[in-house]
Amino acid sequence: MSSLDAVLARIDADLDASLDRLFELLRIPSISTDSAYAADSRRAAQWVAENLRGIGFDDASPRETGGHPAVVGHAPKPGKPHVLFYGHYDVQPVDPLSEWHVPPFEPRLITAEDGRRMIVARGACDDKGQLMTFVEACRAWKAVTGSLPIGITMLIEGAEESGSQFLPEFLEANRDDLGADVALVCDTGMWDPETPSINVSLRGMCYEEIVIRCADRDLHSGVFGGAAANPVRVLARIIADLHDADGRITLPGFYEGVHETPTQILDQWRALGLTEEAFLGIVGLKHSIGEKGRMLIEQIQSRPTCDVNGIWGGYAGEGTKTVIAGEAGAKISFRLVGDQDPAKVSQAFEAFVKARVPADCSVTFIHHKGSKAIQLPYDMPALTQARSALTDEWGKAPVMIGSGGSIPIVGDFKRTLGLDSLLIGFGLDDDRVHSPNEKYDLTSFHKGTRSWARVLAALAS
Amino acid sequence: MSSLDAVLARIDADLDASLDRLFELLRIPSISTDSAYAADSRRAAQWVAENLRGIGFDDASPRETGGHPAVVGHAPKPGKPHVLFYGHYDVQPVDPLSEWHVPPFEPRLITAEDGRRMIVARGACDDKGQLMTFVEACRAWKAVTGSLPIGITMLIEGAEESGSQFLPEFLEANRDDLGADVALVCDTGMWDPETPSINVSLRGMCYEEIVIRCADRDLHSGVFGGAAANPVRVLARIIADLHDADGRITLPGFYEGVHETPTQILDQWRALGLTEEAFLGIVGLKHSIGEKGRMLIEQIQSRPTCDVNGIWGGYAGEGTKTVIAGEAGAKISFRLVGDQDPAKVSQAFEAFVKARVPADCSVTFIHHKGSKAIQLPYDMPALTQARSALTDEWGKAPVMIGSGGSIPIVGDFKRTLGLDSLLIGFGLDDDRVHSPNEKYDLTSFHKGTRSWARVLAALAS
Repeated sequence: MSSLDAVLARIDADLDASLDRLFELLRIPSISTDSAYAADSRRAAQWVAENLRGIGFDDASPRETGGHPAVVGHAPKPGKPHVLFYGHYDVQPVDPLSEWHVPPFEPRLITAEDGRRMIVARGACDDKGQLMTFVEACRAWKAVTGSLPIGITMLIEGAEESGSQFLPEFLEANRDDLGADVALVCDTGMWDPETPSINVSLRGMCYEEIVIRCADRDLHSGVFGGAAANPVRVLARIIADLHDADGRITLPGFYEGVHETPTQILDQWRALGLTEEAFLGIVGLKHSIGEKGRMLIEQIQSRPTCDVNGIWGGYAGEGTKTVIAGEAGAKISFRLVGDQDPAKVSQAFEAFVKARVPADCSVTFIHHKGSKAIQLPYDMPALTQARSALTDEWGKAPVMIGSGGSIPIVGDFKRTLGLDSLLIGFGLDDDRVHSPNEKYDLTSFHKGTRSWARVLAALAS
Repeated sequence: MSSLDAVLARIDADLDASLDRLFELLRIPSISTDSAYAADSRRAAQWVAENLRGIGFDDASPRETGGHPAVVGHAPKPGKPHVLFYGHYDVQPVDPLSEWHVPPFEPRLITAEDGRRMIVARGACDDKGQLMTFVEACRAWKAVTGSLPIGITMLIEGAEESGSQFLPEFLEANRDDLGADVALVCDTGMWDPETPSINVSLRGMCYEEIVIRCADRDLHSGVFGGAAANPVRVLARIIADLHDADGRITLPGFYEGVHETPTQILDQWRALGLTEEAFLGIVGLKHSIGEKGRMLIEQIQSRPTCDVNGIWGGYAGEGTKTVIAGEAGAKISFRLVGDQDPAKVSQAFEAFVKARVPADCSVTFIHHKGSKAIQLPYDMPALTQARSALTDEWGKAPVMIGSGGSIPIVGDFKRTLGLDSLLIGFGLDDDRVHSPNEKYDLTSFHKGTRSWARVLAALAS
């Protein structure tokens, strides 16, 4: 039997051990946005490095970045193409903890009522489960053939969920060390449980935080109510004004650089027949509140958005408190497409906010990291090879779609290393990524590992 | 010298001991809105009862109400008028704790840069400091003359800051036991540090809490952004819509029962010359955001208002989280005047909110206690007597003003006991009531005590 068949057989036989390894990683609470977990991030980096050293990446080790360490390791293969694989070992915060049915860092294999078996834990999908599909595929190739079919450099970072703040510098400083022909990224999803997909576009991001300060202290609404500015009301006005009645964003100049999707792609998307019931039904909703006159798939993939990710101000405890807060804040982010410039959006937002803050009040801005959207060339050779590999595994050609989420690193790869990125992932819409009870189907993990084994073979040919 | 002069001299001589007693009460964290402090409320009630028994209220004891206990004690005086004195021993929560310069329940006597001496602690003014001015006045009368000049029933409750939920029933059940000619209430403020005031009107209250539920879980804004309803955006729309461009409240029928203030009262108010600089400058603001075309004093005393007292939803922690919250909530309260009906306002608000919640989302309402506004007769005999007593103490006639805050109990006294209430208090606008670093000027405490001694004498004549 061919090497590939032997490798696939090995993956099937080794599944339980593969799961044990994934669970070890999932038990480490490597939350990158919260500095209280910095030590756990280092533990996770050490774990990844040790694991890679065991499968041919002899020099794998955590590297200092200025933030959480990034793990880098090399397995060269002279005369063969060389790829840079990217994943991240950090995860999102777990709040609200009370909504978890199992402790977020005690992974379980659970069988759903419909018989689907799923791995439940923070990071089960995003991105520990996904990155381990590639690691386990490499492990099988190494075990069966003694080496990997192509040259691979591993880059597993620890701050993706907090904006990969230090990674651009790190890429810059290690440009030669990270050189490759193409990048492979496993941080995206399938079209549906039967249909693999390859992401050819990613929305960018502009993430802003504002704190409105009115009075210099909290006030009694009985004494000052009716006269004193209320920062929550100021925030509400700003947020309400950000969209018009048609769901379009009202920031002046916001749609500059937003291009229309080619008709033939729109036709392919239309053929997918994505309905509001199917997409929103999973999370208990029925109707899209998105931009009027656009297909749902456009609203979530190729159109820019604005959302409030958090708001706070005044008394949120039990019972009543007749207070007017001195200060209130919100986190507001924009998903960008085409050639929208995050810096311009950030400036437009700042002006938009300032115009709505009373003269005797003040506003503080935190401009979190922004990133441009990405569009990959449809004719990449690696893309063609990967499509046939995925077709072999799933018995169905992958759809070429856009991702609503942003993976800033892909832009950095292009800018700094000159690399296009092949975005292949096995997450599902109901994986509850970033939410309580995040899960990853056992099928995603198992067939995901098999898929990567096939992609490696295809890229070697 | 007259009994009154002797009593006043006694008050002056006993000031330090009076302060010690107040500090004992201030050290008890009797926060009524938070059930974690229930035991402290009982301790505070016990402390008040013991204190009252020492000054002629021989039967003073905590009474069960269904919530925190209310302290009741009697000191009859046959042939003399009988008053019901009301105060509350409970206090507001202390958050944000980090903004306190001293621990909120370790009272300090602090000298400000301008030489003013002030008592700093949660409850220093509202209402422990205020109720103790009356208690200490009684103590002095008892010490000097062996008895009180008029008959007095004490009613010191423990749940005013959480809406006095159980008090109406309690009044109903103890109607005979609480009978009197008039009620005295010490929970209001002075016009300015030199000018005493008597409150002849109180704004009512309608306090609502709403929780908007959209998706059945928190969502990744990359996956669902652009399509999924966001409860924070729903809240923002509701809050923004509650006021028009002129600062008027847009609830249908809201202004039903709002009466214009008589011209001669408006003239008196105009003569007080309250400016935005003077009133709002204290808290770091310059301009009123209130109803256009109204004097500031109207905006804060005789006009109804709507304020957001708290809002929450999504991620409020450090850094960024690209989440769309499943749920978000807000506490919104209305200050009512004239004959506005809290129940009607509550219904109008519920309809207003429901009309702005998407069909596939849901809203939960918590209707907290409401109260009608109060307007006292200008020709009350007790009012005339109290005015002359205050004029003697302060060398200046008290102004007759309205209070922006609501004291539901005053309405209950009228409804249940048929009593008008004389509202006299010594708080100042900069007392930071309900805020960090709440204080009570030593002058307010000392001259407040002297004022009550004089009022008791005036009511006896």
